[in-house]
Amino acid sequence: MTKTIILTGDRPTGPLHLGHYVGSLANRITLQDTCKQYVMLADVQALTDNYENPAKVRENVLQVTLDYLAVGIDPSKTTIFIQSMLPAIAEITIFYLNLVTVSRLERNPTVKTEIKQKNFGSSIPAGFLIYPVSQAADITAFKATLVPVGEDQIPMIEQTNEIIRTFNRIYNCTVLPETAALVPKVARLPGIDGKAKMSKSLGNAIYLSDPIDILWQKVKSMYTDPNHIKITDPGTVEGNVVFSYLDVFDQNHAEVTALKEQYQRGGLGDMTLKKRLMEILETFLTPIQMRRNSFAQDPAYCMKILDEGTHKARQTTEETLKQIKSVMHLDYFK
Amino acid sequence: MTKTIILTGDRPTGPLHLGHYVGSLANRITLQDTCKQYVMLADVQALTDNYENPAKVRENVLQVTLDYLAVGIDPSKTTIFIQSMLPAIAEITIFYLNLVTVSRLERNPTVKTEIKQKNFGSSIPAGFLIYPVSQAADITAFKATLVPVGEDQIPMIEQTNEIIRTFNRIYNCTVLPETAALVPKVARLPGIDGKAKMSKSLGNAIYLSDPIDILWQKVKSMYTDPNHIKITDPGTVEGNVVFSYLDVFDQNHAEVTALKEQYQRGGLGDMTLKKRLMEILETFLTPIQMRRNSFAQDPAYCMKILDEGTHKARQTTEETLKQIKSVMHLDYFK
Repeated sequence: MTKTIILTGDRPTGPLHLGHYVGSLANRITLQDTCKQYVMLADVQALTDNYENPAKVRENVLQVTLDYLAVGIDPSKTTIFIQSMLPAIAEITIFYLNLVTVSRLERNPTVKTEIKQKNFGSSIPAGFLIYPVSQAADITAFKATLVPVGEDQIPMIEQTNEIIRTFNRIYNCTVLPETAALVPKVARLPGIDGKAKMSKSLGNAIYLSDPIDILWQKVKSMYTDPNHIKITDPGTVEGNVVFSYLDVFDQNHAEVTALKEQYQRGGLGDMTLKKRLMEILETFLTPIQMRRNSFAQDPAYCMKILDEGTHKARQTTEETLKQIKSVMHLDYFK
Repeated sequence: MTKTIILTGDRPTGPLHLGHYVGSLANRITLQDTCKQYVMLADVQALTDNYENPAKVRENVLQVTLDYLAVGIDPSKTTIFIQSMLPAIAEITIFYLNLVTVSRLERNPTVKTEIKQKNFGSSIPAGFLIYPVSQAADITAFKATLVPVGEDQIPMIEQTNEIIRTFNRIYNCTVLPETAALVPKVARLPGIDGKAKMSKSLGNAIYLSDPIDILWQKVKSMYTDPNHIKITDPGTVEGNVVFSYLDVFDQNHAEVTALKEQYQRGGLGDMTLKKRLMEILETFLTPIQMRRNSFAQDPAYCMKILDEGTHKARQTTEETLKQIKSVMHLDYFK
């Protein structure tokens, strides 16, 4: 039986945090055992809204790679590659741009939301508007049939399938398989400030690479229940970040349930809980950081991993491009 | 002294006609002696509004190449190449898309006019909207400093220079030289129906490859002066297609002036003039068609010309891409 092909990846705009771990990295570590998994360092996509700061993108390609290796993404099972080094993706994007109307792109809910978030106003870079088409090129260049995404990214997968169907219809072929969104069932990890999303731009993230003293500062500053002043006060569990994290990282579910009951009754201090969480996170992050540090001391090895992965990915995407060009009658020198 | 670099080319959507000869091919034959000239078979651009008919584009790549060779574009002086075989152009396009806003593209006068002409309505393919960016990639991939264009294409060159200036500013470099439009001073050859523009879609063109009997039919049907009924009637020279063609192709200017005077006085029949023009066009086209036929019998030779030209063009564009990627910090494995 052929393995399911997965394409996933990250925009290398900063080091990865616990939100990434819970939302996607943990999944990848599982999936790499049963699927053919490609993980993309999406530097070209990162440039669509960081084009004025390419050095940041460049630096983070290495940082994110270190995060990958540290958490256990295994280059012998997962192909890690750099997007900008695959010309086939750019070529396929250009072909797909003919198959999508401008108004269809302007209606894309994900793009609409992100345009608002990024305050482009009426100055939307063309590269940003068309990036769902680039994503369709990414996905189809690998013939990925499964793409792990957040709920908010589902319209991107729909856009990709529209392009796939249009392409196969116009060029009367079955070159491109349809793809599906894999929406993880895990709860989203909130930021330390209690905001629903942990993100670099909100400044509320715990990074996989945070030193232990920074980690402790962040855990100490976590949002709990602002009305829980004295230890004896009854406290609220709902929206209490410390409990959200314990729910995810504390393996002793029975104890967490008991702690929640005690907190709600009163008689359990925030500091006690934070110390418990700190211990758990330290235990979780220490081996990751040890691996990260050892890989960081050998950047040549990391670059070798990227070089090999990129080489493999290039072969795959060039083969797809060849098939695409063939049905488009662009195969001049067969 | 380094030679001026010229980029020019055609969308391979049909064989070339006398309008192409007068408007661009004649110029290229002169320029190839003094400039470094690249001539592009713009198949990717042709697909922006022919994406549903790629076989037509493919077939015309060979037809247009035959036209080039027939008129005397010399592959030892001019590099003829196929656009779709240069991945660097697609990659550069993607980078430039971040430097142009959607509203700027929507304001481009050339694009606006063409969108109206092609009746896209509100269904403008994204590839069509962004093609000024692709053109900027074409031009800059060769570092062309001179681009022969019609007056209506001047906004495209302005768009290209905007991108060049933005790129050099953001990436703090001088990688991309500015370019200039070369607007030919020749009069535009009207269609045989008297319309200002000769074009395939208007069905009013004389092709370089038209057999002599077709040529004669087309000359006979040429628009003259509809009020010039009898030979003795005075006739109008202005807007008379036969005279427009004689102005361009008849080397005996004194005789043409005399014929115009006689026609205006009355006493000169359309058929006499058409026979004169026919003879001149036949003399002009016969050697071109003989060369065309001999090249057509050796398609392998034509493909070899295209293969070699494309190979050379690929080296040039890859070198530019390398420089672009270097200032964008996308040079991972130096």
